Amino acid sequence: MLYEVDDKFKDECGVFGIFMNHPDQETDAARTTFYGLYALQHRGQESAGIAVSDGHEIRLHKGMGLVSDVVHPENIEHLPGYIAMGHVRYSTINDSGLVNAQPLVFHYLKGMIALANNGNLTNSVELSKRLATYGSVFQTTADTELIAGLLARYSQDAMEDALAKCMIDLKGAFALIIMTEDRLIGVRDPMGIRPLCLGKLNNDYVLASESAALDTIGAKLIRDVEPGEIVVIDSEGLHSLHIMPAPRRAHCIFEYIYFARPDSTLDGINVTLARRALGRELARECSFDADLVISVPDSGTEASLGYAEESGLPFQQGLMKNRYVGRTFIRPTQQMRELGVRLKLNAIKEIVAGQRIIMIDDSIVRGTTSKKIVGMLREAGAKELHMLVASPPTRFPCYYGIDTSRREDLIANIMSQEEICKHIGADSLRYISIEGMFRALGSDGSDYCAACFSGEYPVGLESIEAK
Amino acid sequence: MLYEVDDKFKDECGVFGIFMNHPDQETDAARTTFYGLYALQHRGQESAGIAVSDGHEIRLHKGMGLVSDVVHPENIEHLPGYIAMGHVRYSTINDSGLVNAQPLVFHYLKGMIALANNGNLTNSVELSKRLATYGSVFQTTADTELIAGLLARYSQDAMEDALAKCMIDLKGAFALIIMTEDRLIGVRDPMGIRPLCLGKLNNDYVLASESAALDTIGAKLIRDVEPGEIVVIDSEGLHSLHIMPAPRRAHCIFEYIYFARPDSTLDGINVTLARRALGRELARECSFDADLVISVPDSGTEASLGYAEESGLPFQQGLMKNRYVGRTFIRPTQQMRELGVRLKLNAIKEIVAGQRIIMIDDSIVRGTTSKKIVGMLREAGAKELHMLVASPPTRFPCYYGIDTSRREDLIANIMSQEEICKHIGADSLRYISIEGMFRALGSDGSDYCAACFSGEYPVGLESIEAK
Amino acid sequence: MLYEVDDKFKDECGVFGIFMNHPDQETDAARTTFYGLYALQHRGQESAGIAVSDGHEIRLHKGMGLVSDVVHPENIEHLPGYIAMGHVRYSTINDSGLVNAQPLVFHYLKGMIALANNGNLTNSVELSKRLATYGSVFQTTADTELIAGLLARYSQDAMEDALAKCMIDLKGAFALIIMTEDRLIGVRDPMGIRPLCLGKLNNDYVLASESAALDTIGAKLIRDVEPGEIVVIDSEGLHSLHIMPAPRRAHCIFEYIYFARPDSTLDGINVTLARRALGRELARECSFDADLVISVPDSGTEASLGYAEESGLPFQQGLMKNRYVGRTFIRPTQQMRELGVRLKLNAIKEIVAGQRIIMIDDSIVRGTTSKKIVGMLREAGAKELHMLVASPPTRFPCYYGIDTSRREDLIANIMSQEEICKHIGADSLRYISIEGMFRALGSDGSDYCAACFSGEYPVGLESIEAK
Amino acid sequence: MLYEVDDKFKDECGVFGIFMNHPDQETDAARTTFYGLYALQHRGQESAGIAVSDGHEIRLHKGMGLVSDVVHPENIEHLPGYIAMGHVRYSTINDSGLVNAQPLVFHYLKGMIALANNGNLTNSVELSKRLATYGSVFQTTADTELIAGLLARYSQDAMEDALAKCMIDLKGAFALIIMTEDRLIGVRDPMGIRPLCLGKLNNDYVLASESAALDTIGAKLIRDVEPGEIVVIDSEGLHSLHIMPAPRRAHCIFEYIYFARPDSTLDGINVTLARRALGRELARECSFDADLVISVPDSGTEASLGYAEESGLPFQQGLMKNRYVGRTFIRPTQQMRELGVRLKLNAIKEIVAGQRIIMIDDSIVRGTTSKKIVGMLREAGAKELHMLVASPPTRFPCYYGIDTSRREDLIANIMSQEEICKHIGADSLRYISIEGMFRALGSDGSDYCAACFSGEYPVGLESIEAK
Repeated sequence: MLYEVDDKFKDECGVFGIFMNHPDQETDAARTTFYGLYALQHRGQESAGIAVSDGHEIRLHKGMGLVSDVVHPENIEHLPGYIAMGHVRYSTINDSGLVNAQPLVFHYLKGMIALANNGNLTNSVELSKRLATYGSVFQTTADTELIAGLLARYSQDAMEDALAKCMIDLKGAFALIIMTEDRLIGVRDPMGIRPLCLGKLNNDYVLASESAALDTIGAKLIRDVEPGEIVVIDSEGLHSLHIMPAPRRAHCIFEYIYFARPDSTLDGINVTLARRALGRELARECSFDADLVISVPDSGTEASLGYAEESGLPFQQGLMKNRYVGRTFIRPTQQMRELGVRLKLNAIKEIVAGQRIIMIDDSIVRGTTSKKIVGMLREAGAKELHMLVASPPTRFPCYYGIDTSRREDLIANIMSQEEICKHIGADSLRYISIEGMFRALGSDGSDYCAACFSGEYPVGLESIEAK
Repeated sequence: MLYEVDDKFKDECGVFGIFMNHPDQETDAARTTFYGLYALQHRGQESAGIAVSDGHEIRLHKGMGLVSDVVHPENIEHLPGYIAMGHVRYSTINDSGLVNAQPLVFHYLKGMIALANNGNLTNSVELSKRLATYGSVFQTTADTELIAGLLARYSQDAMEDALAKCMIDLKGAFALIIMTEDRLIGVRDPMGIRPLCLGKLNNDYVLASESAALDTIGAKLIRDVEPGEIVVIDSEGLHSLHIMPAPRRAHCIFEYIYFARPDSTLDGINVTLARRALGRELARECSFDADLVISVPDSGTEASLGYAEESGLPFQQGLMKNRYVGRTFIRPTQQMRELGVRLKLNAIKEIVAGQRIIMIDDSIVRGTTSKKIVGMLREAGAKELHMLVASPPTRFPCYYGIDTSRREDLIANIMSQEEICKHIGADSLRYISIEGMFRALGSDGSDYCAACFSGEYPVGLESIEAK
Repeated sequence: MLYEVDDKFKDECGVFGIFMNHPDQETDAARTTFYGLYALQHRGQESAGIAVSDGHEIRLHKGMGLVSDVVHPENIEHLPGYIAMGHVRYSTINDSGLVNAQPLVFHYLKGMIALANNGNLTNSVELSKRLATYGSVFQTTADTELIAGLLARYSQDAMEDALAKCMIDLKGAFALIIMTEDRLIGVRDPMGIRPLCLGKLNNDYVLASESAALDTIGAKLIRDVEPGEIVVIDSEGLHSLHIMPAPRRAHCIFEYIYFARPDSTLDGINVTLARRALGRELARECSFDADLVISVPDSGTEASLGYAEESGLPFQQGLMKNRYVGRTFIRPTQQMRELGVRLKLNAIKEIVAGQRIIMIDDSIVRGTTSKKIVGMLREAGAKELHMLVASPPTRFPCYYGIDTSRREDLIANIMSQEEICKHIGADSLRYISIEGMFRALGSDGSDYCAACFSGEYPVGLESIEAK
Repeated sequence: MLYEVDDKFKDECGVFGIFMNHPDQETDAARTTFYGLYALQHRGQESAGIAVSDGHEIRLHKGMGLVSDVVHPENIEHLPGYIAMGHVRYSTINDSGLVNAQPLVFHYLKGMIALANNGNLTNSVELSKRLATYGSVFQTTADTELIAGLLARYSQDAMEDALAKCMIDLKGAFALIIMTEDRLIGVRDPMGIRPLCLGKLNNDYVLASESAALDTIGAKLIRDVEPGEIVVIDSEGLHSLHIMPAPRRAHCIFEYIYFARPDSTLDGINVTLARRALGRELARECSFDADLVISVPDSGTEASLGYAEESGLPFQQGLMKNRYVGRTFIRPTQQMRELGVRLKLNAIKEIVAGQRIIMIDDSIVRGTTSKKIVGMLREAGAKELHMLVASPPTRFPCYYGIDTSRREDLIANIMSQEEICKHIGADSLRYISIEGMFRALGSDGSDYCAACFSGEYPVGLESIEAK
């Protein structure tokens, strides 16, 4: 799009894997993975890939675009096997196209190996220097290639021992799926920053970033992979290693606020219920004398419904979202450029005109969209506009796999709350408090990473500071 | 899609046109039309096209797919001009690809002419026979080519006279945009079956199927084109001809129920408000002792909110829709085929388990999806399931530009209401009454075409019966 | 290509048709047509199309590009039938893309009809005015649509009578293939300007622009379609109508000089033998004291071999042609732009250095390429360079279906032979004489159209002069 | 193609590189490389790629297909820099698509490095085991990745020292271009099996597989890179290292027979002259009482001209080649399948009928095409058919970068010369002798690798025997 109307943090990846003991058809593992990725498409739209093992060889197909653009029936035909894994990716600024698309597949001392990761290492600079000193070369800028290089260094050891050693070397956030010719392995970072869950489709184990992917393929959620756990699935079944004593958990709280699908349940908490609770908490913290509650669709809807429920105010759909917004490269006319957001959202005059409105969004990053929406609602005749945000001000960049804007672009860093309110043109602007956010999730905050709000980073930032 | 989860009637087309007196840039008319079509994309996703006149020549670009797939910046560069028009189309069964994509552009006695239509003629067989007898040939199966042929027969007359003669010949539903080298013309059938509205972007006139397209480009809605009206826009401004005394109006009621965007206002009635009123009426007609109201997203949401409002029951989002469902040609595994709908929708167990649920959809056509959704909710633990439909049973095919299923596929034709209820597995199934539907729209029904519910066709069906 | 290295006239089209009485498989007719077009690809590379009749319906597939780019296996699957026809086209300056690609398929009073043409009408302006006055509309700028419109005017008559009437109306050059649901028809203009031949594949009749297409599919050449002949093939066999008494024949002589494949035999004369005879005649007319004969590949090779044979000088391949020259849109560097022709041709220093060379090409149009080749040979060390041309100077535009450059671009119109020689940098420049050319073909010239050399146009140019 | 008409060995790759001291425009290096690859397209049609350095960063673009399919203007825009290199590839049976396309670009200890290779290592299995033992991983099956891994092992050393060490490790054939951020390096295997030459474009050095690529871009051939030489080009100019004392030279003789362009000069011998000499030698070894000499175009043409010259028999073009043969996936009809070769070649009856013909091809691999051509000429009326081959029988596979058929497919391994003659249906079949071949090249054979004829492999085959 020529102008960005999505003023949101971006998740970077989704992963999926399945070990099918007795597939009906030789492409069942690949096809199930296709649909698993389909369900995780919101976690990354820039590239998609599937790797499959038939017990002897790992085959790979990947490309740029949505999973349904990248994977065609003829590709599936070339992916026979009983173990499969896949990846969807949202590219960050350093990426340069297909070469970084995952899964990555390697030949190494013990055969073939495929890897796909959701997360970000915070000591990648150190690791890559260390590996390069011993002669490693890298084709990609992905942490996943570093992890492969590290594993290969330990390739004289058994895979599980090698993985255990890797766990000690790796710092940061990762939810990693690894496939060898005959095994499927899931690994989650010691604090469980990025989500990864385990399910069963009949008797077959499945790994996925979110439980919604399990639902989509008809699998049942068993449990989440534990922080610091290595889950190894082979023809004998599943066994688990807990390498690192976890000092604390640090689940990414933004998964609940915005990233994850509402129908997913992560680490025991359902996302819809969490958002609704955030809305109710917001109602308790910030009440207004208003006529109705509207949401910025779709991200603010659950919180808005919670707010309406708690406050007793009616919920209305005052903003309509165009479901067909795609990538367009047609330059808008001068006039349209000022209207921008209307391609995606439209105010319904008949609902908002003359009303005192509470508008709820899940978060504000740069404030650009909020300003346009407020303007549009004003033009449609809204009498009062109180903007509420179901998360605290985002002030700190994420180093654990989320593409936040640069710190100097985060509006909460460059303006006071009052200035932001004025800037976007609302009558009031209120955020939920950090404490309120934790309270809504039934926590004192010690289980979550909320660094983007608080600046308290649970894992060291060696590489980042080294830069 | 290998299996169809959209159990809905299909609208066939959207049209858009603009006459720019003093465009800033020579491609402004084309670019504005692009965005107008973008806003009408829900009315047709199979082909898209834009025609532009620079006063001397009409240029055309069209292709198969979404407007953003079909129109690229280099295409726009080849579309200079100050008058532009466009079309999006959902193809019906008789169509064979690009040849039928619109606009159609013709050379005729007086120069060049472009046409795009939303609607369906009911006397096309007679008209095409009559024209062929005089030596006409047809490259397409589109009514639009018939209309062009007819216009050309009258080409010795002035355009307005020729159009007036055409109006007498044409039977059926049409919302037609015509462009000559120096004029933009809108024509609506004598009963106003298909929508067409008139707006202004600064001082420039705009025509569009729905007012939401005006909002998107920053134009203001002036009024609807009247049934039977011919609106001619040229450098002198706008003038209007009312050729045919309209015996009655017959606006397609399904536009309010399902087709039109919620943020459009058609013939004076806002679609969101209409749907909400249908929901409230439904609550008055069918009340249940239940715990919560959910909707089949997105089509049932406004009615559900209206129902919740009237009934006092809480509205919850118990079904999650995957926003990334696209065309996929990957054959699902046997197991997934049974789950089908889960690619698109997922039940949120945490919301529905143990609850007595009222689920509202806008319509049921073949019942296939309803059955799957009910099954999914049962599996998620719903205790009671009462399905309500915000329109009456659809029993009759549409001959006015809507792609209904064949009559023998319409479930309300092959089963009683009780049988349908049993078939889809609900505890109850209730539809709004025809009278209730009209009441919700503040009408006695005499202004609407509701033939798909009642079988009362406002315009004769010569060609259809001739077949 | 950013710069044109093909300094040649362009043929505009090739046509092919087959009537299969008992095809083994239902797509045999389409597939055979595919390969027939493949063999005629040199006659047009811009669009390709195939139409097929199964006795009830005519189906069409066409697109922009080479036949192998346009037609894929899945397209063939959708083209069942026992009669098929196809077309390849080189677009002329007035064309605007796919809409003009042929065959054109029409519905008319008597059913469906498909047409494909190689040629150009010289009274198209009059015809289109006449048809438009009666109400015809045209989607294309192709003569073929005019012919269809004209046929449809006579559609009350039997097809053969209608065709006979058309023959009287049409002026110019045409080699036309027409298909109805159950017939395949070939029509050639009264003077036989454009080629069209008749063959047999087992017991099935085949029509093609050139006999090489018959060889490719394994058919035998029976004879050429006669000037002014209408050949009708149906399940009864073949019958023929000779409508117009031909005042004279006027076969396009440029087919022998450049357009047709060397392995084709047109109107009784094999193309390779004709070119070789032109080379021998050239040797008799223009002899030089030289060391070797080289050709501009591939167009000059047969004439060069004939020259070498007659003169006793050795033939050598002093210029190498890159077989992989395709369409490229990469802008060359400044330096390369000057070298231009080297992408396509390269001089072999080891052969040309120090030699007195006779270089033979089939024709010179604008002289741009000749100049570059001479420069390249000089740089490679050629001692003397005598350029000979196996056709007379081209001074007049063609109105019979060939895309000649504009008259003012033809170098023979703007420079004397001496000036051209100096301009291209050769030591001598000689053309074959018009008489010599005819002599080589064993003719006094009365059977050929040589208007591009002589300006004597055998058919009136009404429309052209009207412009 | 559904059936293979190219009965030839396949070359595997072409390489090109340029170091531009002062490019006029920042994409000149990339654009020149594009055209260099264009000229080398015959050496590989399956993938193409260009890498460019701007002194700081190496950027890469590659894809599947011809260079003009893969590289578009927008790709060039993203390839600014003053050093560029490229690669075209014909894929061998082990390759799996894009991942193996070259150049490969790596990050390693010292920065970035790009590599492209033409050749094949004969100790790749040993090398990859050795590297994997130390922890290397490989994404491709290309030798080029092995070479990068090996270089990286020595990355503590200066690049030139590291390369010198590599030269000792690598066995087999290679013509390698390497680019770092600020250097362009050419490396040729110790026996010079694969070609690599050095040119100058004004003051800028160029490396290319063949001298024709230099001609195409307007550069001058300076000399060939010596066997075992490392040529390093940087802003200081060029310097050279000769690491390995070359025990002997072993230039691939098949480059002269078939692979290289006729206008290239490799290791001092021009390819056209070599082929002509082979034809003359053939005439001395095998003379027949015949009427004319024809060639299998285009590969046999130079030898045929040489034969005609020596024998005094006339050369004629009795077989016409369709210049538009592309990839087609349309299944031919049953009848056409038998005709096969006619898509590509056609006999000219008027030339061959009733004649005693000598037909010359450069080589016979499996004999499939020869058999079809002989059949086609017989059908066209040839009276006698003597097939001569301008190379000895090919009996041994190549391990130095050429894709020969499997040994059991080589017809000379499964039939005697007499049986082959009978199999293809010729009246006689004769090959040039190995001695005659060397004699034609003015050599005693000690400078060439002719292993495909003699089975005498100049370099050890460790990996091959290990398999």
